[in-house]
Amino acid sequence: MPETPDMQKTIALVVRPNTAGIEQPVQQLVDFLQHSGYRVVFEAGTAEHLALPGIDAMSAADIGATAQAVVVMGGDGTMLGIARQLAPYDVPLVGINLGRLGFMTDIPVERMIPALDAILGGKARSEKRTMLEGCVKRNGETIHCGQAVNDVVVARGAGAGMIELKVTVDGDFMYNQRSDGLIISTPTGSTAYALSAGGPLLHPTLGGIALVPIAPHALSNRPIVVPDSSTITVEIVAGRDTSVNFDMQTFASLMHGDQIIISRSPHDMTFLHPEGWTYYDTLREKLHWNEYPAGDSRPK
Amino acid sequence: MPETPDMQKTIALVVRPNTAGIEQPVQQLVDFLQHSGYRVVFEAGTAEHLALPGIDAMSAADIGATAQAVVVMGGDGTMLGIARQLAPYDVPLVGINLGRLGFMTDIPVERMIPALDAILGGKARSEKRTMLEGCVKRNGETIHCGQAVNDVVVARGAGAGMIELKVTVDGDFMYNQRSDGLIISTPTGSTAYALSAGGPLLHPTLGGIALVPIAPHALSNRPIVVPDSSTITVEIVAGRDTSVNFDMQTFASLMHGDQIIISRSPHDMTFLHPEGWTYYDTLREKLHWNEYPAGDSRPK
Amino acid sequence: MPETPDMQKTIALVVRPNTAGIEQPVQQLVDFLQHSGYRVVFEAGTAEHLALPGIDAMSAADIGATAQAVVVMGGDGTMLGIARQLAPYDVPLVGINLGRLGFMTDIPVERMIPALDAILGGKARSEKRTMLEGCVKRNGETIHCGQAVNDVVVARGAGAGMIELKVTVDGDFMYNQRSDGLIISTPTGSTAYALSAGGPLLHPTLGGIALVPIAPHALSNRPIVVPDSSTITVEIVAGRDTSVNFDMQTFASLMHGDQIIISRSPHDMTFLHPEGWTYYDTLREKLHWNEYPAGDSRPK
Amino acid sequence: MPETPDMQKTIALVVRPNTAGIEQPVQQLVDFLQHSGYRVVFEAGTAEHLALPGIDAMSAADIGATAQAVVVMGGDGTMLGIARQLAPYDVPLVGINLGRLGFMTDIPVERMIPALDAILGGKARSEKRTMLEGCVKRNGETIHCGQAVNDVVVARGAGAGMIELKVTVDGDFMYNQRSDGLIISTPTGSTAYALSAGGPLLHPTLGGIALVPIAPHALSNRPIVVPDSSTITVEIVAGRDTSVNFDMQTFASLMHGDQIIISRSPHDMTFLHPEGWTYYDTLREKLHWNEYPAGDSRPK
Repeated sequence: MPETPDMQKTIALVVRPNTAGIEQPVQQLVDFLQHSGYRVVFEAGTAEHLALPGIDAMSAADIGATAQAVVVMGGDGTMLGIARQLAPYDVPLVGINLGRLGFMTDIPVERMIPALDAILGGKARSEKRTMLEGCVKRNGETIHCGQAVNDVVVARGAGAGMIELKVTVDGDFMYNQRSDGLIISTPTGSTAYALSAGGPLLHPTLGGIALVPIAPHALSNRPIVVPDSSTITVEIVAGRDTSVNFDMQTFASLMHGDQIIISRSPHDMTFLHPEGWTYYDTLREKLHWNEYPAGDSRPK
Repeated sequence: MPETPDMQKTIALVVRPNTAGIEQPVQQLVDFLQHSGYRVVFEAGTAEHLALPGIDAMSAADIGATAQAVVVMGGDGTMLGIARQLAPYDVPLVGINLGRLGFMTDIPVERMIPALDAILGGKARSEKRTMLEGCVKRNGETIHCGQAVNDVVVARGAGAGMIELKVTVDGDFMYNQRSDGLIISTPTGSTAYALSAGGPLLHPTLGGIALVPIAPHALSNRPIVVPDSSTITVEIVAGRDTSVNFDMQTFASLMHGDQIIISRSPHDMTFLHPEGWTYYDTLREKLHWNEYPAGDSRPK
Repeated sequence: MPETPDMQKTIALVVRPNTAGIEQPVQQLVDFLQHSGYRVVFEAGTAEHLALPGIDAMSAADIGATAQAVVVMGGDGTMLGIARQLAPYDVPLVGINLGRLGFMTDIPVERMIPALDAILGGKARSEKRTMLEGCVKRNGETIHCGQAVNDVVVARGAGAGMIELKVTVDGDFMYNQRSDGLIISTPTGSTAYALSAGGPLLHPTLGGIALVPIAPHALSNRPIVVPDSSTITVEIVAGRDTSVNFDMQTFASLMHGDQIIISRSPHDMTFLHPEGWTYYDTLREKLHWNEYPAGDSRPK
Repeated sequence: MPETPDMQKTIALVVRPNTAGIEQPVQQLVDFLQHSGYRVVFEAGTAEHLALPGIDAMSAADIGATAQAVVVMGGDGTMLGIARQLAPYDVPLVGINLGRLGFMTDIPVERMIPALDAILGGKARSEKRTMLEGCVKRNGETIHCGQAVNDVVVARGAGAGMIELKVTVDGDFMYNQRSDGLIISTPTGSTAYALSAGGPLLHPTLGGIALVPIAPHALSNRPIVVPDSSTITVEIVAGRDTSVNFDMQTFASLMHGDQIIISRSPHDMTFLHPEGWTYYDTLREKLHWNEYPAGDSRPK
């Protein structure tokens, strides 16, 4: 890659902490990238637990402004954390898993070199994922805002009974819901907590947001999917110790009358996958769709 | 309405058969419409069981080509039938229910005159609904096609065991599913059979199609929502007495290897609602969202 | 009732607090019972918010030792509270609801006089309900015990992620479950929180205990019903802010390694219902089984 | 085993048909059993597809009257078929699977010799399983009866809409249910079709029967578990092409007014498992309880 240093492209690495034996594949990855002509930097959090000679640390903001791509080595949790920070920037993400396929980290570490070689060479399937943003309003004033790759969750505290939430979509009253809480989920989040609570799978290109109640009192309070152009307002009507979290980042101490206003973020994430990758391949593997766990005694 | 007869606007009426006491509200409706300057016709099927002096019968095709609006008096089943026939035309539908609110027939008969007066005068909330179309292919040849307002259902026969279906979306293999069948549902159909089978509610503006398995063998074969730009192919892999139906219109005798190819219809339906109507009002009433059927002993 | 005072039978009243207009029906009930020859007492908590001349207060323990029956006026929550206290005694309970049918308070206040007249005269359908008892063990020591009419719930705190619980039944390892928590429910509790979380209805005479996971990570972690002779051990393996509650009475601050050991209580509750009462009548009314909320457009 | 021939104990073998390579393990099993002093016979159906010199064929009835144990080699379907035939007799069953663990065939073929050696030597965990029996009544006359190890299913035909069933338990009216059908399941059947339709798992010792509706119209028509001392009556109220089946053995052509009367069979099955076997071990493996298919991105 005969480029002058100031034209040199930068790849940032984000690596899951506390991972035994991670140094060897990181070194391998760094060698490959440097050999391919890239400048390699560590994201600041990664640099705290990993050090390699000649590899600089860089903040998420600087990575967003500078890097051509970010390679994430770890699980979906690692991806989730950095993706939320990089949301305002338009830098694509590549996910490498360390042994177990992730929904967002789809390249096995054993195949990372040829996969990255192809992807960085332009043979990639690019995929946009929507995000949510939400703000808490109290007495007309915004007191907290957050971003979510997976979901915004309004939920009761431990030991508290049901909460009651008033839900409004684009100004139209939907319902007052009594439950353990409400999950507002992106398509990305539809395979996470929302799925456990009974929500549907949403294809990433759907353009929808799922509202999935957690253990709702009324059996007919079923998951509902609205267009991602919607503005969803959740007001705390009753209940103790209610909190809201954005991808599990918690803002506690909600009060009755507080409103959480949620809409699609103006920022999308971009994942780069190997060519031939499909979302259904991942679903099939993660959800064991080709195995038959139950009911073998039922004749075909 | 000072129009010359040849410019006179036409309203077609569709009325549910076998309905005791229906003549009186029909007469009232006809009087109101004629008095407002409209020509009133009966849809051909309606004319078979209802006769009023001076009211002509008209085929669905002629209604589609001629009428400015169609007023349906009955339940959602009556609406479903005529809507599918009128799909190729761009004529809006108004639904009047005879005692119990419908998802598509939202105006109570008691309030029909003022509601229609407002709607026909232009004070209406217009709402588009998508439809599905599907064809059965055998050995590369199309042997049957159909339209659906609610859903296309591929299902096993009585007394037969599970069937196995291979599902492909836009050429990407999704899975081989073993189940009683698969419901492919519009947002309109998401409150019908798909809901009974565990599917999510889809807002009519979502732009999605739900795939809802019926009693699937694998517990992780959860409902999945794909964009309504998708082409869904369902292939019969195994099972006896498999059939496909379009809004309950059945095409039986599917054979192994047959493919049902389903996509959004190029035709939308248009419903006219009273101003102020919202989809959530209907959901709330139909699904008893403001009542609390279970768990009263659970403290708030 | 020509009995000497020391032979006089005692009926205890428990009345829901903070209930506008309750005085009049209570007075009516007291008059009826006294006129029928019973000594009437108020349960101590009731006496704090209700006072009538000549009506003594009595502790739950004394009621248990003395009264022939307890009449509960309120909702299922009121019944739940007193039933747990009276568990060690063999005194039957009669439930009067104040406007909305309860699962345990099945006699409408308007019909209470003839209903009680019949029931106290022996024309009653007696119904046993099982209860649970559970203790928390830490390092081999019992640090807390509780009773439950509905359920014992082990659950995560607000803002905490999933917890991991190790479940053992009669010494046989069942599974390690990752979820929001686990509900261990009696048949009585099967219409409460357990139902919201996806559990089955259990007939009160079943002799079973339902284990219902709350939003479990693994989709195959389905509700399971075990015989009520079972001893269920739930060990806290991972997670923050985990608590256990007995009918919503919370014991917080569980630590990793703590075990909650749950079994059927040696004490049953006895409800007295009017003759002809059936459990299914209550279910039908509470769960709207004779209405058809969804899917009207689906032909029969 | 120094017994005289007329005292010789008999073991019957039932082997799945159409199974490539089955001859070798069957021969190995026969050799082991004969060497251990048993007389070995083939069940009549097995003898039709397998022949070994000196091994007689025997009808199920004769096996029931004669054999000390029946060894079933195949999957749960094979076990299901023979178990229903042997129901009237008190002969224990041992299940050997050919590669994939079954709920009822729990011994892997590779370990069959030592497992059988121990079990036949008395080192076994014996397990009773309940069965159902049911009869169809028309105009007061019994027109068909059947037995079920797993379930009795009343279901609509292909292409037919919903059916309506009136369900009565021990003479108490439960509800009129509109659905695709109703599964009445034993604990054994709770891991089969009933699980696919949303039913709970029932421990084999529970003493319960689950009523699991298939795609019910009313969302509150949840699965319900009743004691297995109950008599359940299902009456066909509406719908076309309704049929009933017993473990998938179909009796078609039900008419409106027909009643299916279902109760626990007087006969139980007895399975013999290796010592140390537990029901939960099987559930864990079959239901992948120790894997985490979904939601990896959800932090613990």
